[in-house]
Amino acid sequence: MKQVYLDHAATTPLDKRVLDAMKPYFSEKFGNASSLHSFGTDAMEAIEKARESIAKVINAKSEEIVFTSGGTESDNLALQEIGYSNRGKGNHIITTKIEHHAVENTCKFLEKDGFEVTWLDVDKEGFVDLNELEKSITGKTILVSVMHANNEIGTIEPVAEIGKICKSKGVYFHTDTVQSLGKEKIDVEAMNIDLLSASAHKFYGPKGIGFLYVRKGTKINPLMQGGIHEKGLRPGTENVPGIVGMEKALNLAEKEMEKENIKERKLAKKIVEGVLKIENSWINGPPVGKKRLSNNINLGFDFVEGESMVLMLSDKGIAASTGSACSTKSLKPSHVLRAIGLQLVKCHGSLRVSLGKGTSAKDINYFLQELKPIVKRLREISPLGGK
Amino acid sequence: MKQVYLDHAATTPLDKRVLDAMKPYFSEKFGNASSLHSFGTDAMEAIEKARESIAKVINAKSEEIVFTSGGTESDNLALQEIGYSNRGKGNHIITTKIEHHAVENTCKFLEKDGFEVTWLDVDKEGFVDLNELEKSITGKTILVSVMHANNEIGTIEPVAEIGKICKSKGVYFHTDTVQSLGKEKIDVEAMNIDLLSASAHKFYGPKGIGFLYVRKGTKINPLMQGGIHEKGLRPGTENVPGIVGMEKALNLAEKEMEKENIKERKLAKKIVEGVLKIENSWINGPPVGKKRLSNNINLGFDFVEGESMVLMLSDKGIAASTGSACSTKSLKPSHVLRAIGLQLVKCHGSLRVSLGKGTSAKDINYFLQELKPIVKRLREISPLGGK
Repeated sequence: MKQVYLDHAATTPLDKRVLDAMKPYFSEKFGNASSLHSFGTDAMEAIEKARESIAKVINAKSEEIVFTSGGTESDNLALQEIGYSNRGKGNHIITTKIEHHAVENTCKFLEKDGFEVTWLDVDKEGFVDLNELEKSITGKTILVSVMHANNEIGTIEPVAEIGKICKSKGVYFHTDTVQSLGKEKIDVEAMNIDLLSASAHKFYGPKGIGFLYVRKGTKINPLMQGGIHEKGLRPGTENVPGIVGMEKALNLAEKEMEKENIKERKLAKKIVEGVLKIENSWINGPPVGKKRLSNNINLGFDFVEGESMVLMLSDKGIAASTGSACSTKSLKPSHVLRAIGLQLVKCHGSLRVSLGKGTSAKDINYFLQELKPIVKRLREISPLGGK
Repeated sequence: MKQVYLDHAATTPLDKRVLDAMKPYFSEKFGNASSLHSFGTDAMEAIEKARESIAKVINAKSEEIVFTSGGTESDNLALQEIGYSNRGKGNHIITTKIEHHAVENTCKFLEKDGFEVTWLDVDKEGFVDLNELEKSITGKTILVSVMHANNEIGTIEPVAEIGKICKSKGVYFHTDTVQSLGKEKIDVEAMNIDLLSASAHKFYGPKGIGFLYVRKGTKINPLMQGGIHEKGLRPGTENVPGIVGMEKALNLAEKEMEKENIKERKLAKKIVEGVLKIENSWINGPPVGKKRLSNNINLGFDFVEGESMVLMLSDKGIAASTGSACSTKSLKPSHVLRAIGLQLVKCHGSLRVSLGKGTSAKDINYFLQELKPIVKRLREISPLGGK
């Protein structure tokens, strides 16, 4: 059966060129980077080369990159540890209502432990209000955490403007770029970002590896205790093949970004045009071409259950999702769709389609062809009505 | 130049058969295990199959295995979270003076946060005293953490006896098996283990993946916040190739354990016999053949700096270490060697040799041949004396 993968926001296939770059580090240059002998120094050199190259992509210094096991760990290290390390200054954190669960639930965890969290509203396209953000900052505020691009509806937040506000107010600015790194240009200097979370498997790199950018001079302690790795911020034997793979993947993504974005935006428009011909359907998030990830389309359909759509599409070999992969099994309506003001009943009829390097116009034709009868079928059996 | 890798306690090369098992999960079956479509369910099935197989090896239930990024994370999750989740019952933790830094420093971290930690002494071979351990347990004790096998001197602690004591006293028992899993038989039921840390790269599996066994019913919260993965104990997109690779590696290690142990013990004896011919040299830890990891030999030489030995051996293509890879760069004398009562000056002259699957008798001959002139040379230039 034809296989069409339209869930690149959940994860991406490892690029073959990335696997090739990783291969020598599995069984030949396999040393522990902390070892003094040549196997160790070879591993350490590979890590430091990768660190320098990754830093360059976001205009950071090499020593500001801390390797972690992925986006969730990066978010936890940033939020928990900025929180606990700066409690002397204040206990107030500002974030939004549409963050990834790794940020959202870490903030809720801190709330239970005595921190005050301001949850910023977003408008109907998912954008935060810069005035509201600025007004929320008090003398007790230690951190603002706003994602760069939303994982469900693709909204690209004005991080440069947020960074400017945070800098002028003297509070740390953390941004989760798990969805945007490798798809949008990021410059931690120009954008005044103090902490930035990233995950390799979202840009055709390996699973189980990510990094946290931490601006030099930031007051932060490690989340875990152990050996003196990563300048004391993250203990544990370094995942050398993972780190090397992440570097390769990020550099490929940067090189191919412009071309990919043009292609994906074109395909996204094709999807939108095709889908909006279906009655009682709509797009969640900003219009394609506006400040939205080029590969993300979030569709809405009345009288349809998103999960049923996903399963019926899967039967046709098409992989799509209702929203964040991390919450697909929770059955709760998306907190992002709720935050943009979508009625509860309409939240359940969402379908996230996320394009990637391998996506072709043919794939989109197949998707549109299969989607229409599925929506029709589901509406026929819907207890909510429909045609 | 000839390359002889004798640092398997630091890390091991990925077994080619393990890489073969991982390969399909990089770019073909690459789905996010939380996704509802077939790419997701394929990934989830692979994970659950691996979980069941790993559980079986240690006689655990499948749902008691929590995948982590490695040994350090497993130790932190176990110790920090047993600590914080059971503070209502008590604040006392018992551990030893020879734990890996991931356990040692987590206990020190908890000590600073109001926990009381008893640091058990060990005898001159590195063994804990069961009576002392039992006497240390009070009404406030919530956890005993004693490693299965020591990473520097190979001592295998009496975990079954410790487990029995902990069970009878109603306190949790955690053991770090990072050095022993795949080399020694472990049965969490027979040994009454409640929590067990493991890391794949120590048994020819990939770096960046490990697990924590958590006995059903144990009161513990997650270290990180995010999605609902791993029964809520460890959020983040699962590292599918890593998990599949860890399972394959563990099963191979179990199958080949007996044969490997016999071979390694023979080679270890050869090393000991060869080295003890050098004047003013000795063995740290239990004698080979006693309760000691079959692949570990920790040698001591008077009037020699361990680091210089490691570097000069490295120039001859031989990889060995002074002790734990995680602390090689700290310049502090080994806390393990100090704990077994070795004089400070003697701690600096240690050399850890750790054998593996690929180690041959020829390798050992080469090592012995190169070691002797190195020790002689270093003694000649030593300010401490020597011949």
